This record gives sequence, structure tokens and C-alpha cells, in this order.
Amino acid sequence: MSTGFFEGIEPQKFVGPDSKAELGFRHYNPDEVVLGKRMEDHLRFAVAYWHSFAWEGGDPFGGQTLIRPWHPQDDMGRAKMKADVAFEMFEILGAPFYCWHDADIRPEQGIYAENLATLEEITDYLGEKQEASNVELLWGTANMFSHRRWMGGASTNPDPDVFAYAAATVKGCLDATMKLGGHNYVLWGGREGYETLLNTDLSCELDNMGRFLNMVVDYKHKIGFKGAILVEPKPQEPSKHQYDYDAATCIGFLRKYGLENEVKLNLEQGHAILAGHSFEHEIAVAAAEGMLGSIDMNRNDYQSGWDTDQFPNNVPEVALAYYHILKAGGLNSGGTNFDAKIRRQSIDPVDLIASHVGGMDICARGLKAAAAMLEDGGLEAFLAERYAGWSTDGAKAMLNSDLASIQARVLAEGINPEPRSGRQERLENYVNRFV
Amino acid sequence: MSTGFFEGIEPQKFVGPDSKAELGFRHYNPDEVVLGKRMEDHLRFAVAYWHSFAWEGGDPFGGQTLIRPWHPQDDMGRAKMKADVAFEMFEILGAPFYCWHDADIRPEQGIYAENLATLEEITDYLGEKQEASNVELLWGTANMFSHRRWMGGASTNPDPDVFAYAAATVKGCLDATMKLGGHNYVLWGGREGYETLLNTDLSCELDNMGRFLNMVVDYKHKIGFKGAILVEPKPQEPSKHQYDYDAATCIGFLRKYGLENEVKLNLEQGHAILAGHSFEHEIAVAAAEGMLGSIDMNRNDYQSGWDTDQFPNNVPEVALAYYHILKAGGLNSGGTNFDAKIRRQSIDPVDLIASHVGGMDICARGLKAAAAMLEDGGLEAFLAERYAGWSTDGAKAMLNSDLASIQARVLAEGINPEPRSGRQERLENYVNRFV
Amino acid sequence: MSTGFFEGIEPQKFVGPDSKAELGFRHYNPDEVVLGKRMEDHLRFAVAYWHSFAWEGGDPFGGQTLIRPWHPQDDMGRAKMKADVAFEMFEILGAPFYCWHDADIRPEQGIYAENLATLEEITDYLGEKQEASNVELLWGTANMFSHRRWMGGASTNPDPDVFAYAAATVKGCLDATMKLGGHNYVLWGGREGYETLLNTDLSCELDNMGRFLNMVVDYKHKIGFKGAILVEPKPQEPSKHQYDYDAATCIGFLRKYGLENEVKLNLEQGHAILAGHSFEHEIAVAAAEGMLGSIDMNRNDYQSGWDTDQFPNNVPEVALAYYHILKAGGLNSGGTNFDAKIRRQSIDPVDLIASHVGGMDICARGLKAAAAMLEDGGLEAFLAERYAGWSTDGAKAMLNSDLASIQARVLAEGINPEPRSGRQERLENYVNRFV
Amino acid sequence: MSTGFFEGIEPQKFVGPDSKAELGFRHYNPDEVVLGKRMEDHLRFAVAYWHSFAWEGGDPFGGQTLIRPWHPQDDMGRAKMKADVAFEMFEILGAPFYCWHDADIRPEQGIYAENLATLEEITDYLGEKQEASNVELLWGTANMFSHRRWMGGASTNPDPDVFAYAAATVKGCLDATMKLGGHNYVLWGGREGYETLLNTDLSCELDNMGRFLNMVVDYKHKIGFKGAILVEPKPQEPSKHQYDYDAATCIGFLRKYGLENEVKLNLEQGHAILAGHSFEHEIAVAAAEGMLGSIDMNRNDYQSGWDTDQFPNNVPEVALAYYHILKAGGLNSGGTNFDAKIRRQSIDPVDLIASHVGGMDICARGLKAAAAMLEDGGLEAFLAERYAGWSTDGAKAMLNSDLASIQARVLAEGINPEPRSGRQERLENYVNRFV
Repeated sequence: MSTGFFEGIEPQKFVGPDSKAELGFRHYNPDEVVLGKRMEDHLRFAVAYWHSFAWEGGDPFGGQTLIRPWHPQDDMGRAKMKADVAFEMFEILGAPFYCWHDADIRPEQGIYAENLATLEEITDYLGEKQEASNVELLWGTANMFSHRRWMGGASTNPDPDVFAYAAATVKGCLDATMKLGGHNYVLWGGREGYETLLNTDLSCELDNMGRFLNMVVDYKHKIGFKGAILVEPKPQEPSKHQYDYDAATCIGFLRKYGLENEVKLNLEQGHAILAGHSFEHEIAVAAAEGMLGSIDMNRNDYQSGWDTDQFPNNVPEVALAYYHILKAGGLNSGGTNFDAKIRRQSIDPVDLIASHVGGMDICARGLKAAAAMLEDGGLEAFLAERYAGWSTDGAKAMLNSDLASIQARVLAEGINPEPRSGRQERLENYVNRFV
Repeated sequence: MSTGFFEGIEPQKFVGPDSKAELGFRHYNPDEVVLGKRMEDHLRFAVAYWHSFAWEGGDPFGGQTLIRPWHPQDDMGRAKMKADVAFEMFEILGAPFYCWHDADIRPEQGIYAENLATLEEITDYLGEKQEASNVELLWGTANMFSHRRWMGGASTNPDPDVFAYAAATVKGCLDATMKLGGHNYVLWGGREGYETLLNTDLSCELDNMGRFLNMVVDYKHKIGFKGAILVEPKPQEPSKHQYDYDAATCIGFLRKYGLENEVKLNLEQGHAILAGHSFEHEIAVAAAEGMLGSIDMNRNDYQSGWDTDQFPNNVPEVALAYYHILKAGGLNSGGTNFDAKIRRQSIDPVDLIASHVGGMDICARGLKAAAAMLEDGGLEAFLAERYAGWSTDGAKAMLNSDLASIQARVLAEGINPEPRSGRQERLENYVNRFV
Repeated sequence: MSTGFFEGIEPQKFVGPDSKAELGFRHYNPDEVVLGKRMEDHLRFAVAYWHSFAWEGGDPFGGQTLIRPWHPQDDMGRAKMKADVAFEMFEILGAPFYCWHDADIRPEQGIYAENLATLEEITDYLGEKQEASNVELLWGTANMFSHRRWMGGASTNPDPDVFAYAAATVKGCLDATMKLGGHNYVLWGGREGYETLLNTDLSCELDNMGRFLNMVVDYKHKIGFKGAILVEPKPQEPSKHQYDYDAATCIGFLRKYGLENEVKLNLEQGHAILAGHSFEHEIAVAAAEGMLGSIDMNRNDYQSGWDTDQFPNNVPEVALAYYHILKAGGLNSGGTNFDAKIRRQSIDPVDLIASHVGGMDICARGLKAAAAMLEDGGLEAFLAERYAGWSTDGAKAMLNSDLASIQARVLAEGINPEPRSGRQERLENYVNRFV
Repeated sequence: MSTGFFEGIEPQKFVGPDSKAELGFRHYNPDEVVLGKRMEDHLRFAVAYWHSFAWEGGDPFGGQTLIRPWHPQDDMGRAKMKADVAFEMFEILGAPFYCWHDADIRPEQGIYAENLATLEEITDYLGEKQEASNVELLWGTANMFSHRRWMGGASTNPDPDVFAYAAATVKGCLDATMKLGGHNYVLWGGREGYETLLNTDLSCELDNMGRFLNMVVDYKHKIGFKGAILVEPKPQEPSKHQYDYDAATCIGFLRKYGLENEVKLNLEQGHAILAGHSFEHEIAVAAAEGMLGSIDMNRNDYQSGWDTDQFPNNVPEVALAYYHILKAGGLNSGGTNFDAKIRRQSIDPVDLIASHVGGMDICARGLKAAAAMLEDGGLEAFLAERYAGWSTDGAKAMLNSDLASIQARVLAEGINPEPRSGRQERLENYVNRFV
């Protein structure tokens, strides 16, 4: 029985690029085959529970704008109503996946034991809804940043009791994720960082965070969870500095604590921008290390210095992201999670649907452009030509030699390399043929 | 015999904080003992040859403003005149160290063999001047970013011949650094990065850079160079992206290529700012890994998005930098290199002197404030109290346990941690008692 | 009778720079005479009701951390308790002024008529407390950004009814400010801007904002309010773009709508930083137009892209701000309002006191340094020398001539100006003698 | 007779979107009619002499990479060779316009009289080439930022002789622009700003700049120049602060000095980004005041903090720019000047052609998308609906009333406005139907 929240909005179907209707997919066509795989299986769209259902529309200077019958979520009844509406939306969108934090789905009722019990109850309920709908859980995660107990960090808290509370929380969430057949488990350490170095023991906190993550990996193996463990880089906000600053920083951290073969990255466009990178940079860095796990698709306003989490709307940018994803072998157990929220002025139920439909279409266009580029092969051909020298025996021998013998050769042969064009604009023109 | 360039400017002496004179040290007093060590031995000031002697005053929108008799430096005669003036300045300042790139000191005359020969000649000349003056070489480095041959990278160039040229260049510079008794050798990879991912094979380039650095380390050991090998992080400029983005990225890179015990970091204030960090953050990150090597002291204008390389002038900021340096055990073989340039409108010879005197005074004030904080011990006492829980047997046992047993304890004991004040403002007030 | 909230904290007194105590003014000494005026009369400190009493410690990723007996403020009883605590703090600090938004002081109880009535009641109560304490109101303002009715703007809202509601709200707040003897009235247009140009009629909104401000000025004259009307620039946040972007933009707006002699600016350090300016830049721009009204003193973290509203803690920066204020003739009816909030981890009552004490000391040090520079006169002397040419008759005649006659003179006289040093580093050294 | 520089590159023709060739216009078709006007007449493309012919490939960390037979340009012979190559490129591209600074086209040979003479000679030569080719001059301008005489400003220099030199220079350039039938005259004040407020008399400098611009306008009228006088906003670089910060700042300046009906703006995408704005924001601000003059089309790398002047390559962004231009009535006497430079690694002659072809195609796609949106009218229809309230008599009466009467009405009618959705995502989806 419908909640009626989305009354009058039909399940979204592919209507093609020439449609004049407000809704309907112009480009996303789940069954269309791209590079030998169904579009849905490439993109693996997920809806984020927090933005679309938990958030009330507040920002740092304003309060609730979104008036929903399930707000505030302080009891199990409203938590279930929220779940009902959420699954109605997943089905309207044809979204194959969703994602949650524990605090998005259960009521917050106090201390650990109670929250664990309500998490148990609500995930049973979600499990029934998953079965009824064929919607799956892309990943679960624990919210260890909103409640005041986390204000000084979770696994990096100066107080060992908070570390204990965090460990217990992640155990509960990982158990719940496994129960629901989740494909991955994510850790985003919004408070794992510092507000000021003056009150922070950096070494102690990093070591504790490394130990914590090792415990999570150990527990995953113990219970036989087959999904990937993912950490999500972000440079700052709410913290002044977050330890998981960007992909390169996370990779260095994982290697230091012996986790480079156990943990992958969940990369977000907006977080990349806040860290001073393009999204494709972060993807390429992770891919170069074999650590690309999943993506949080959104966009950050380029003129805003905080996490705007807007729906993607720029095809050329999204196409480059999927290009690097496809080159890296695709998303595997990961997916395309819309870590994106409607603007707080978008208060109509239809705004929730339209924003996701638009984002899905942008991703579909990006994917198809990326696939077309790969099929055409122009970029790969240029790279092969540009780096051809490194395939020669001479270059390989040089890499196995030493400075002195290389110097001798440079002197003997009078090596004086002539630069060659980097062709950036020609390559940009090439890309623009596809987007 | 004096070149006359600094005519009328006397060697700078300590004149005390109440002096009304334009020059003279108000705070830097080399022999003053701070924390049991002479101030000069803490700070180990170095003058950067490039900014003060090679740079002609150009910026992206304008040409030469600084008219010097040794410009342009296209023959050995002017190279030696430049060296004469440089050492006159070192002596006026009482600077115990200086630093150079090969291209700063020798004329650029063409291909490798010729540049090596002129490097040999000019470093012989510099060696004589060092002996005559007791000024020492803090570090040498190779300029592998200005000439067009490096436009696509040095060790990361798609052309193996450029890699070879770079290897030969570093060998020559490392030999010269050793000949001059240099205390360290620095690598800053201004072109080791990319302009666009479209034309870049990230994995190939990173592997080549890792191999290159290993060769440098091997060669250092082969010739018995006792100084430290340092890499210098910078996020971008001139490249869109530089692989040595920041301290954490460099540390991850070093660990990946097995160099974490061989290479340390040369950290620069301006580069920290460009990477989105405070300078003390970069120092603290390096120190936490035991990889603090040396510092490039300057400042970046907070409202400018490029490397402004200004002389430091903010004592509270500099004090925090030295506080973290002192906590980490000091600069050891490193030093405080003024990687700072006068503004291009500061065209008088006295501007060169005044800028360094001012910078040295700022550092001296920062050092003394940092030392006073450490002697007072207020920050350390608060940290000890804040993290005291981690010294307990219970906390240590927890770190050696697992998620399931921690959860059991949280449930059994009803753990519900109460947050405690982070006291940031109180700590900031504390610091302001010293600066 | 005390509320007991600050139990154990004595009124703050001048204890001098050598004190080791956690509290007490080391530098702020209200009666000390600086440039012929009492320090208190220069600085005119005000406490911001919103940060210290209304804010609950939330940020975009977390909820309440500050547990206060007057939270949540949904009835008049708690509103009065809040006022009691606030005045206790003003007296502990010896703060001569405070500032409020209507929504900070009254409970939010619904529609306009009710809010007006509670505003009336609470301002009567505040009036009694002002009389009892000699604390005065530096300025009042209307919160027209938090409630969802303002989500699309106040005076710039597409809905004329919201404009009407805004007009009625400002009238009520201006009446209340006058009743309480407020020295100024401020307008900060946090939602007067846009989220996307796609849904925005820029011309209509700007004209309505101009008309609105004219109505405010007219009403001020009608009721005989003698204080200044001030607008407060900020570039963005919460809006993507705020019309009052920075000082120069506001001045242009005021001139366009004929208000350049009626309205002045309330400048904030953090907003300057977000707009890409230094604080002293904004002050100098306003001062050059005679539009410097008042300041919101705080600081913005240079590595964070949102409004961090931290307490000032950098004397060299604050000194330059007061230097430009003193040069412009001081703050007049304005003051130094601490638009600054404790960090959300600073949960102890003493943190509220310590943060203000620290900020007041920083301002006192800045003021004294600025005054000393002005008394010494070194900067003014250099400016007089540098611009001396513009005082000559020839220069004045040239300004009254035209391009053709100037060209003729350049040709005839072979004018070929030789640049002179800008002496930036020498001037920075000069400033560092005083801070 | 061809110089041979572009040997083997044919004049570029429309080849259609499906072409696989490296060159040729896929979207720019000069004679195609869009909104009733030829595409060429909408876009009015111009090539910038400085980037494509004067620049040698240097950046702050590297020297010349582009080896051209006309470099360095120190005599008239090479200046003419440069002009020959430039016009060959204009014809290959079918570019109807070009733009120059005096220093781009003439050799720099010393003092004013000589530079005026060579300017005279080279503009005669360019005039002949214009006639032979039907290429026209979109605008001329004076380079008053590169030579060291301008290091402290041109019209804002502390030295009146530099003001005189600047006045004479602009007169010469305006005369030359008129001689060549230039359509506009531009002033970009790269050094009209400051490096430090410590050595700057802000009021004096702004007044002199205002007087200078009035002289330029007077002279324009005196000689009967029919083109527009345009100023070009940029926030900083090379200056720390440029007085012409952004569109709003320039407009305020023009109004202060009585020039709001005489001077318009030349807006650049990259400068908008550096100022914290989107390009369409700057266009919309200028258009709202009737001050849109011309555009410098390029793009700035979003992760770089300096002026990257890259060729545009993002259709969705460019489409929004042209949408606001078309809504404002088009470019009139202005045009689309490619203030864009090839990357310094793009050293082949074909890179110069490909970059412009790509940029022209991007603009053509943007223009067509913008026109299609306007023809469809969806955005305008939504705006009309959203702001409909302001067309009512009641709203108009309210704007002519006062705060007190509005308050009375709010109280009497119990006005309590209900917010309506801002529909941002739906509008973004709408735009994505066209790009």
C-alpha cells in the first residue's frame, strides 16, 4: 500500500532524448548494452538514505525547510514510514541499490544497547522490503560524527571509551550490512582529524585509527563478509583537517598499516574538489594502485568552499570520471551512489524524483561517451605512441642501471633530447567529439 | 675586494629590539643560547641563490625589474661576479649557509657536457669562497624545470632520453654538492606531474620517479655522501598537479618505493598553504613519521593562488612552526632556507639585505617563543592529561583485542562516554602569552 | 541573583602580561589611555548574543554539543534565563556593549504578531537589565535567514508577501533597537542572493533590495533614530552568491540606489577572507569612501572555505585592522563586536569567558601597536614621500588637462620615468617593530 | 606569399559533427542562421595577438618552449613576419577579428617617441593586411604592465610622470585603433592595484584612475571614435589586488566617477573564476546594468589559483554564458575574443590551429544550445511565473509605501507566506536537454 507521498508520480521509464516531459529518462536505459554489459550493471546506481530521507533541509544559517511526515525520526513508527517512502522512491527510479548510515534508518534513542536493538529491528524491516522489491544494499556505514559523543573523534578520540563505543558501533553496522546482503562496507571519518593541532596527539591518533581499521578487516574475515571494506577520503569539513585527506593520503595510510590489499577507496566528486583535485584525478590515483572501490557521485559548486553535494549536471566532467573507471575495469562490487541532496528550496516531492532522474541521465550520457572513446581508442593510441620509448630494451636496461653509467652514456652519446608536443588541446578536442 | 654592490651597507649586528635603525638584528643574536643551544645552531639560516641572485624580477605579466651587473648570466665572468656578490651578502647577513640549483650558479651554455664543465668550474670557485668565508652549503639541487627539455617532466618524462639527461644531471649536482661539503641534497619535482591526465600514463610516471629516486639513494651511498636526501612537496605550479603534492603524499610515495628510511622531506610554508594545509601541519605530519628534514621558510599571501615566496613576517605563525620542529628534535642536518624573494618593486640593493634581516628576526622571535612554550610545558601537560586514558592497561588491552569483545564490554558495562572540552581557545590564549 | 551558570568565575580584571593565570586581561586595560582616549572607548567591545547564547554547537555534520539550561528556547521563561546569563557574562567581561538578532532573544512562536509581542516583552526585560548593568546595545538586527519563510530571500524574495513580512520585521526590530538606545542598526542579507541564476531575476531582486533599504532609511528618519544604518558584506554562505559580496560591491550598490550618504558598512574579518580580501583591505576601501561603520571581529581559518567565526588570535593581523580604523578616525558610533563562537568542543562555561578574554586581549594588543605606529609616523612619512609628486602644481595641471596635451609634453620633454623601490619588506619590518 | 609557418594546413571548413579528422569545424558554421542571425555575426570571433604570437611559452618556473622565427621581436622585420603569420592564421581559421596590445605588434625599442613611431609603422602594415584579408580589429589596447616602468602602476602610479607616460601611451593606442577601424578600445589595469597596502594611498590612486578614464572618454569623443570603451575586470595577478576586481566593483567605480553611460565591460571567464564567480554571473551582473561590452573567452583550471587562460572546452558552461549574452541582446560592437593560449608543451604549429578550431566549435555548440533554450522559453516561463506577484498592483503599491504601513497590513491580514519550491534541479535538467 502506497504511503501517498509520491502520489501522481509514475515509475520512471526511458522516454528518449527528444521527450519534452519534465520526468522520464532521456538517456538512462538500463538494458541498453554498452561495451558488452547492460548500462544498469555498469552504473549500479544507489540512492543515499541520508540526503533524501533523513536531512530536513537545514544549513548553517537556517533550519528545516523540508516538511516530511516522517520527521523528526524519534520513534520506530516514523522510521518505518520513512523506509516505506524510501522504497517507493527506489522503485519509482528503478534504482537497484541504496546506502545508509545506522543513524539514517533507526531512531536515535540513547545509548548503545538501545540503538543496537532498534538497528536490529529496522534492518529486519528493510530486509523484508529488499526482498519484496529486489532493491539491494550497496553499502552500509556507521554515523560516527553527528552525536556529541563523537565531537572529538571516533577511533581517534582521546578517550578510549569512545574508541570502544566506535568499535561496537561498527561491529553492529557491519553485522547489519552482512545481514542485508550489502555489497560493501564504508568508513568515512568525518571527525577523524583535528580542529587544532594544539590539542592533538597526531601519532597516537593515526596509530589508533590504523589499529581500528585492522580490527574491522579482521572482523570482516571472521564473519565471512565478502564485500569490500572502503574508506572515503575528504580533506576537511566538519573537521579542520581530516586524516583521510585524499586518495593519495589514504593509500599511504593503508600501506603504512598493512592494509593495501584489504581496503579500497570510495571516492566522491565533491570531496575531490575540496581537496584541490579533479574527480578523474582521484579515480586515476586509486586505479593506479588497484584501489578503486566505489564512487559517490555528486558535484561541488566550484565557487563554494564547503561540501555542496549537488546532483551532477555536467556531462563532460562525468564522462572523464567514467572513462577512468572503465579503463580501470569498472566498478566491480562498487557502484554509483548519489551522495547528493536536493537544494533546500526544492521542497516538492517531485524535486526528489527529478533530481535523481537528472543525475542518472547525466551519468548515462557520461558512461556512453566514455565507452565510445574507449571503443574509438584515440587516447590510448596517443599514449602508446607518447610512451613508446619506455618499451624499448634500452629504456628497460637504463632503469636497471645506475646514475654513473647513465651519465657516461649521456656524455658518450651527446644525448640532447628534443621536446615533442604534448597535444593537450588536440586531445581535448578529441574528447569533445564524444561528449 | 668588494664588488661595491652593497656599498655603504655594514655587516649586520644584533642591535636589540629598541633600535630605531632601518637595519640591524633586533631579535636574532647568533650566540644567544636557547634551550641549551646557540640560536645560530638552531636556526641554521641559508640564503637561496635563485631568488636573490638569479631572478631578474619577472612575473607572468612583466619582465625584468632588477637591473644587476651580473644579468643576464650567459658567461663565466658574470657567473663569478654573481658569486662574489652573493658571498658579500652572506657575510653582511652572517648567514652560515646557502643553497643553489646548478642553473643558478653556472651559465647555461647548451648541452650536458658543457654544463657539467661549467658546473665544475663554478663550484671550484664557490669552494674557494666557502673556505674564505666559513659559509657552508646547506644543500644543492638540480634545476630540472626551467629549460624546455624538461617541459614534459624530468624523471617522469615520456621520453627515456630525458630521464637519462635527468639522471646525469642529478649525478653531476650530487657530485658537486659533495665536493662542496653540502649538508643535504634536495629534489623538487616542479615538472614531475601533469598538465592533463589525457596525455599522461600515471602508473608509468610514478614508477619511473620511484626508480629514479632509488638510483639517487644508491648513488649517494656509493660515493659516501653523508648528507640527507630530501624531497620537497608542492601541490602544483608550474604543473597542474605535482606528484609530490604534500607531506602525506610524499610519505606514501616513499613507503611504496621502499625509501621511507632513506629520504626525508624539505617542507616549505608557501607550498603547505597552496596544498590547503598550515605549515605546522606539514611539519607535524613529517615529524610523526620521523621524516622532517629541512625547511624552506617563506610565506604565501593568503589571498593569492600562486607561490608568492614572500619573506616570513608573522611571528605567531612562525612560532608554531618552530614549536613543532623543536618538539621533533630540531633541524639536525637541515636548516632554515629562505626560499623567499623580494617583491619585484624592491629594486634597491638594501631591499635584499633588509628582507633577509627582517626574516631572520621573525624566525628568531618564533624560535624563542617556541622554546619558551616548551620550557613552560603547558601544551604538553594538557596533551598528557587529555590522552591519559591511552596509557592505561585497559586501553592497551583493548587495542590488542577485537570488535566482538569490545562490543561485549560496551554492552556489559553500558559504556556511554561523556565528552570533555577540547579547550581550543584556552590553548590559543596560552600560545599568545608567548608570541 | 546569579543564575550560577558561571559559578566560580570572577569578574575579569587587568592582571598584566606576566600573569600565569588562565583568565584575566593581560593587555586589555579599559582605562588606559591610547592616543588620548580610553582603551574601552576606542575598542567598544560587544558580545554577540547568537554565538554565545543561541547557538547549540551544531555544524553541518553534527548536532548539539552545548548543553545549556536555556536550550531549546521555546518559551519566555527560558528566554529570560538566557538574558540573565548573558548579562552575567557581560559583567564578568566588563563588555560595554552587546548585539542581537530578534530571533536570538525572543522565543520563536509562530507568525508575525506573536513574534512581535514576544520581542516587545523580551526587549522590555533587556532594557531593565541594561539599566541595571550599564551595558548598552551596540546594534540590533533582524534574523531573516533561519526560518523557512526566508529560504528564497527576504527583501529579494520572488513573493511580495515575504517582502512585506521582511519590512514588518525590520520595522519591529528597528523600533526595539531604538527603544533600547541602540547605537546602530545592521542588515546582513544572508539569503539576499541566489542559489542558481536559473531561477533568479537579478534586476528585479536588486531593485527591490534597493527600495527596501531606502524604506529602512526613511523609517529611521521618521522615528528619529540617531544611530547608523549599516549593511554587512559577505560573499556567500548560506547563499551561493550574496548581493552584498564585499565592501566595494556594497558601496556600488549604495551609490546606485542613492544611499551613499545614509548607510555605512559593518565589516567582518571572516567575510573579508571568504571574499578573497584581507580585513585591512575591506576597512581601507570603506574608509576611502567614508563608509566605515563598525566591525565584526573574528577570524576565518585560512584553510577552511566556510565561515568559521573563530576568535581572533593573531596580533599582527589585528594591528593592521586597527591601524586603518584609527587612520580613518576610529569607530565612532560603531564598535568591535565579537562575531565569534567558541569551537563546538569547547563545552565548559569557562570556555565562553576565556575565548572573549583572549579576543579582547588580542584586540588591545593590536590597538596599542596600531597607535604606536601612528605616533611614530613612519608609514605616513613614507607615503608622503612616495606620493609627493602629486602635490606639485604640474601634476595638478596635468590632471586638469587631456590626453593630447599630455602626449605633447611627453614627446617634448622625452619623459622616461625611472622606477623607485616600493620598499615592501622594509615597511613590513617597520610594522614588525610594533607588533 | 605564404611564410610557410602553417605549411600543410588548409583553411578550416565546416565538416560536420561526424568527421573523424583532426581539424575542421564540427559545429561552427559561419553562415548558419541562429535566432535570425548568422552564427559568425553572433559570435564575432577574434584571435588574441599576445597569446598566439607574442608569448614564447614561459611560465614562472620555465622559459621559452615555443621556437618561432619571429622571436624575439626586437626589430621591425620580425614584427612584420609575425604579422604575416598572424594573418595567415586568421585566414586559416576564418576569424573575422583580432585584438592586440601595442607591445604585441611593434618592437619594444625604448622610450615613448620611438615606440610611437614603430607603432605607427606596424599599424600601417597591419592596415594593409586588414584590407587584403577582410579581417577587422575587434579592439586595441595598451600594454601598461610588462615594462618595468609600470611596476608600480600606470594611471595609479605614485609618480606623475608615469601617469603622463600612460596617458600618452593610451592616446597613441586609441589613435592607432581608430586608424585601423577598431570596434572597441579596452583597458585592463594589471598593475592598477597594489602589492601591499603599506605603501599605497588608496584614495589618491582611485581618484587618479577615475580621472584617467575620464580623459580617455573625452579623447574618444574628441576624435570621433565610435567604438566602445571597455574596462576588463580581474581580481588579482600580477597585482595582489587589482582595483577592477570584478564586474560589480567596476560598475561601482564607473558610477562613482560618472562614467556609467560611457564605459562598458570586457568580461573574461578566467577572471570571473579567479574572483570567485561563475562566468554567467559576471555577464548577468553587467547585463543587469546595461554594461555588457565584449567577452574574453577562455577557461580557468578550477584547481589552479592563477590565470590559466586555457581554451574553452566545456559546452554546458559556455552555453550558459551565451544564454545570458543573448538575453542581454547579444554582443553588439563586442565579440568573442579568445584570450586563450595553448599549453606551453603544445609546440607544433598545428596546435595553434587545433586549439582555436576546438574553441570555436565549443562556442558554436554553446551558442546553439543557448538559442534553443531561448526559443523553447522554458526558463523565461518559469521566471515569469515565479516573480508574477511583483506585477500586481498590490506589490507595486507596497514598493511605493513605507515600513509602517506594510507592518500594519501584515498585522491586519495575518500575512504568513508559505514557501514554494525553487525547482533548481528541474531547471538544471531542463538546461541539460539542450547542451
